[in-house]
Amino acid sequence: MTELPPRPDTPMLDRVTSPADLKALSDRQLHQLAAELRAETISAVSVTGGHLGAGLGVVELTVALHAVFDSPRDKIIWDVGHQCYPHKILTGRRDRIRTLRTEGGLSGFTKRSESPHDPFGAGHSSTSISAALGFAAARDLGGDPGDAVAVIGDGAMSGGMAFEALNNAGHLGTRLFVILNDNEMSIAPPTGALSSYLTRLYTRGPFQELKAAAKGAVSLLPPPMQEGARRAKEMLKGLTIGGTMFEELGFSYIGPVDGHDLDQLLPLLRTVRARATGPVLIHAVTKKGKGYAPAENASDRGHATARFDVVTGVQAKAKSNAPSYTSVFAKSLIAQAERDEKIVAITAAMPDGTGLNLFAERFPRRCFDVGIAEQHAVTFSAGLAAGGMRPFCAIYSTFLQRGYDQVVHDVAIQRLPVRFAIDRAGLVGADGATHAGAYDVAYLANLPGFVVMAAADEAELVHMVATAAALDDRPSAFRFPRGEGTGVELPERGVPLEIGRGRIVAEGGRVAILSFGARLAEVLAARESLAARGLAPTVADARFAKPLDRELILRLVREHEALITIEEGAIGGFGSHVAQLLADEGVFDRGFRFRSMVLPDTFIDHASPEAMYRAAAMNAPQIEAKVLEVLGVMQLSGKRA
Amino acid sequence: MTELPPRPDTPMLDRVTSPADLKALSDRQLHQLAAELRAETISAVSVTGGHLGAGLGVVELTVALHAVFDSPRDKIIWDVGHQCYPHKILTGRRDRIRTLRTEGGLSGFTKRSESPHDPFGAGHSSTSISAALGFAAARDLGGDPGDAVAVIGDGAMSGGMAFEALNNAGHLGTRLFVILNDNEMSIAPPTGALSSYLTRLYTRGPFQELKAAAKGAVSLLPPPMQEGARRAKEMLKGLTIGGTMFEELGFSYIGPVDGHDLDQLLPLLRTVRARATGPVLIHAVTKKGKGYAPAENASDRGHATARFDVVTGVQAKAKSNAPSYTSVFAKSLIAQAERDEKIVAITAAMPDGTGLNLFAERFPRRCFDVGIAEQHAVTFSAGLAAGGMRPFCAIYSTFLQRGYDQVVHDVAIQRLPVRFAIDRAGLVGADGATHAGAYDVAYLANLPGFVVMAAADEAELVHMVATAAALDDRPSAFRFPRGEGTGVELPERGVPLEIGRGRIVAEGGRVAILSFGARLAEVLAARESLAARGLAPTVADARFAKPLDRELILRLVREHEALITIEEGAIGGFGSHVAQLLADEGVFDRGFRFRSMVLPDTFIDHASPEAMYRAAAMNAPQIEAKVLEVLGVMQLSGKRA
Repeated sequence: MTELPPRPDTPMLDRVTSPADLKALSDRQLHQLAAELRAETISAVSVTGGHLGAGLGVVELTVALHAVFDSPRDKIIWDVGHQCYPHKILTGRRDRIRTLRTEGGLSGFTKRSESPHDPFGAGHSSTSISAALGFAAARDLGGDPGDAVAVIGDGAMSGGMAFEALNNAGHLGTRLFVILNDNEMSIAPPTGALSSYLTRLYTRGPFQELKAAAKGAVSLLPPPMQEGARRAKEMLKGLTIGGTMFEELGFSYIGPVDGHDLDQLLPLLRTVRARATGPVLIHAVTKKGKGYAPAENASDRGHATARFDVVTGVQAKAKSNAPSYTSVFAKSLIAQAERDEKIVAITAAMPDGTGLNLFAERFPRRCFDVGIAEQHAVTFSAGLAAGGMRPFCAIYSTFLQRGYDQVVHDVAIQRLPVRFAIDRAGLVGADGATHAGAYDVAYLANLPGFVVMAAADEAELVHMVATAAALDDRPSAFRFPRGEGTGVELPERGVPLEIGRGRIVAEGGRVAILSFGARLAEVLAARESLAARGLAPTVADARFAKPLDRELILRLVREHEALITIEEGAIGGFGSHVAQLLADEGVFDRGFRFRSMVLPDTFIDHASPEAMYRAAAMNAPQIEAKVLEVLGVMQLSGKRA
Repeated sequence: MTELPPRPDTPMLDRVTSPADLKALSDRQLHQLAAELRAETISAVSVTGGHLGAGLGVVELTVALHAVFDSPRDKIIWDVGHQCYPHKILTGRRDRIRTLRTEGGLSGFTKRSESPHDPFGAGHSSTSISAALGFAAARDLGGDPGDAVAVIGDGAMSGGMAFEALNNAGHLGTRLFVILNDNEMSIAPPTGALSSYLTRLYTRGPFQELKAAAKGAVSLLPPPMQEGARRAKEMLKGLTIGGTMFEELGFSYIGPVDGHDLDQLLPLLRTVRARATGPVLIHAVTKKGKGYAPAENASDRGHATARFDVVTGVQAKAKSNAPSYTSVFAKSLIAQAERDEKIVAITAAMPDGTGLNLFAERFPRRCFDVGIAEQHAVTFSAGLAAGGMRPFCAIYSTFLQRGYDQVVHDVAIQRLPVRFAIDRAGLVGADGATHAGAYDVAYLANLPGFVVMAAADEAELVHMVATAAALDDRPSAFRFPRGEGTGVELPERGVPLEIGRGRIVAEGGRVAILSFGARLAEVLAARESLAARGLAPTVADARFAKPLDRELILRLVREHEALITIEEGAIGGFGSHVAQLLADEGVFDRGFRFRSMVLPDTFIDHASPEAMYRAAAMNAPQIEAKVLEVLGVMQLSGKRA
């Protein structure tokens, strides 16, 4: 695996440097191009790792869209963006495709700053129809010309905002194309009623001629298909209610079509492009991981993969020194749930990512995968809590933003004991800025009654799960980072922490560092280096951003000349709450050196988490420098009276 | 209008002190009860003002639900809650119904702390199905027993999270009741495709026997209706796809029924309560404002009203000394749009509340009401911006929480110039804690690249609209409070402000107060009182929370002994950003008195805005006290060196 694998032979793909080159190719040549594009995608991801299955599922769609539409004049918007690697290869980025998701390389998602062929960035699900409708409405008012095409998976379609967008698009009635990429598999198999409905639609036959005909979509069908449809129309005279859900919402529905069959896709897209006057939804059935057996046969259809051997499909195993925070969370929650039958768990379509797949295996009835539906997930959890259960709602920091109003309105205002398990807190690495968990402390810690914790290491996480389980009179949240823990010994069982109490980790001299969360290891590394100069600071772990440990903080103030807070989050969170306390207590009146280390005021591009934290100035050397800076300032201006 | 109107004669209602009392009444007596409940609702709201039309539309539904179901064992959850006044009258709160929305009185929404008959609080739309499903799932796992019934309007049904909940409920398949209260009118007439669909459903006839039959819902129909349905079933043999959208999502659909006809509602609810095993949706068609001509004839169907004369329907006119911030915003935006055809406006079902109804009259094609769909509204605005337009997305502070992830992900990360017009910033009065705009500064000002403004008065607002219009390279937001302005003279036209520059409003002595937003008037009142003692502080208006006016702030620090910030928001916002700046600049190292006045760490109950700000300790006397406190501290500890 150390040698680069041989590149596939791609004579047709080699002729394509931009989508315009596809216009010169015959349909037969496009078939060949698709095969080569698939091979190139597999080859590239085998080197970089990344999202494989989604891209393989849309190889033919990608070729067909670029052959028929005219990017960048026409805007092709890939929902979520996991499936955009083939699109990147065809749109002038093939030379960098083997830098995907690495520092300085291509993003794993579409990104406006990367190419004019990425008209709208992605990363979070279910946004594409809203964005495409925005482009279409702008065009209608004299803005950028061209068509707008949203390509959205069936999983993403279950997100409420996709429905909101369909509802609005059907009302506006302007020309707009939505390709429903129905692969029955987002990350996990989708679990909603919509998914069953889509399956019923396409198990009926290759073409829903009947329904298309009923609503006049017949004129959008390519000629060979029209005759049957006209016959069907006769049969359905007088039926004005019915048809597919999408037709009810004002779309012309065409499908299902075989999303891997260019001979269906090309004439269909050409026809709708030539004739559509309103919103059109094309239901394409595809297979995630298509054309690469190891992906097709994987339980996640090759959703996300490490580097792998193209021939065998065997993935490079990452060296692991400690269990991941995610698995520690899952096992801790299972341990709590063994003793407490009121504990239930909720995920929004991320059972594997959150570790709740393990919980679901052990307690299938007590685990709810609600689909890509964070708003519902939060209020459903609130309902469970109001009904007497102890819900743990496990949502990544970045995705909990989707349910923020529900956290405020349905959980906090009602003081319902929903427990939020916030994975991927802080910077996350290869997924980049769209997945950074930067804001949760700021947006939770100012909610009255909330308990907000962050785990300094995986042993702390075990105790925080126990703390949340025991906290029955108010909402709580505990955040923890992506990746593996620090390797500390795990406790036999979690013991509830005293609410609002931090701990001293290491006593030291003139400066105190108060850490909230998993930067603690870096703080301790900085302390070690400073100790060699005789400048070891006191190190404390706040554990709680809310309620603050007032006593501990004021003790640190009394006993030190300076206090530095650090957290894996943006301004407005832990450090801001400490600053408010110090101001209210008059600490600053008398002169006191206080600094708050937070994420900088920039969106940090994808790189390794270590590199991202270096860019954020939050690694050990930079913590050390901050201590020296504070001490230096003191040296310049003399000791505090 | 100063005398209390005579109370209606309500002999039947007088016998009801709790829902249990309805069980002893005959259907004929329930008819009489409904009539009296309607009269009592009208009478109560004529005294208090409030939401009239929604309650009048569900009088019969309320009676039928309480007659058939068993609250509080069964959970009746009113979506949004505007329609809960009749419910409150029947559930032991009649004696306080004339205290609605007043300080210390009943909430205008359902509220858990108010009554066991309010199992889930409301205020924001589209949450009821999620909450009800939570109760149902809890029941199934041994939590609280009883049925869960969500009553949701057609407008609220267009919110994405309602769809997410339907999708999840259909999948889970547990017993659950959803009453779709279809009055074709949420606040404004609904504008989505779903609304047209619902209208098509009920214009077909009194009962969708055909569709109900197709999915087996026939067993849920009361006996007299079953015969026709069985016949219909014969006709539809073999049709497995089709039916209503709700059936596609796994619900048994029954309807449309006349929501004002107890003779339809009572047997139907009794039957479904006796027989349902899975999720059931009952589509009830009602009329907002039903039974009270002045409401029925009003353009908003009596949605929200001031106190009024019951006989004439004439509302008490509030004395108005200055135009409302909302109308100043709307007129300013229209003025900008007259000169700039790229300006477009977006509202999420609040054209009147945001003032965009005026914009829509002037520029119908450039105004988009997307329905109750804040997530979509934000990303649609981002798409419009990417397509070359200048979108103003007008959403109240509290509702923008619904689109927070989209603000971060689709607007901020992409640095798209969407302009957020944030009305109802700060405390809002009678709507209480659920509608407080407390968090927007905290959750926006930490987003890289964002420009965050707050208007100190209505003249400032005019300039901020112009500033946002001119700001083409990044996202911006300007917030302003509910209610009328201060009465300052309005400028002829808005002039773009220099980005990140505040202004000195009044020079003074030892203390500087830096105000962000409309507390400025209170600050100036405090200054006047302090001036009488020779202690007039300097008063500055920050205008921008982001970017901060570093120069102004450091000048205030240099020239004063203390700095106090004040804002109509929670911790984490403007004051926290100032504190971070002062810490970074080493201002505290040398000793400097800094205080940040923010909303307190409690949810403040409804009252007048003035009373709420008094509770929040943010009125002039409390600002004055804060200055004196800071000066007192100084007097105790001596002057700063």
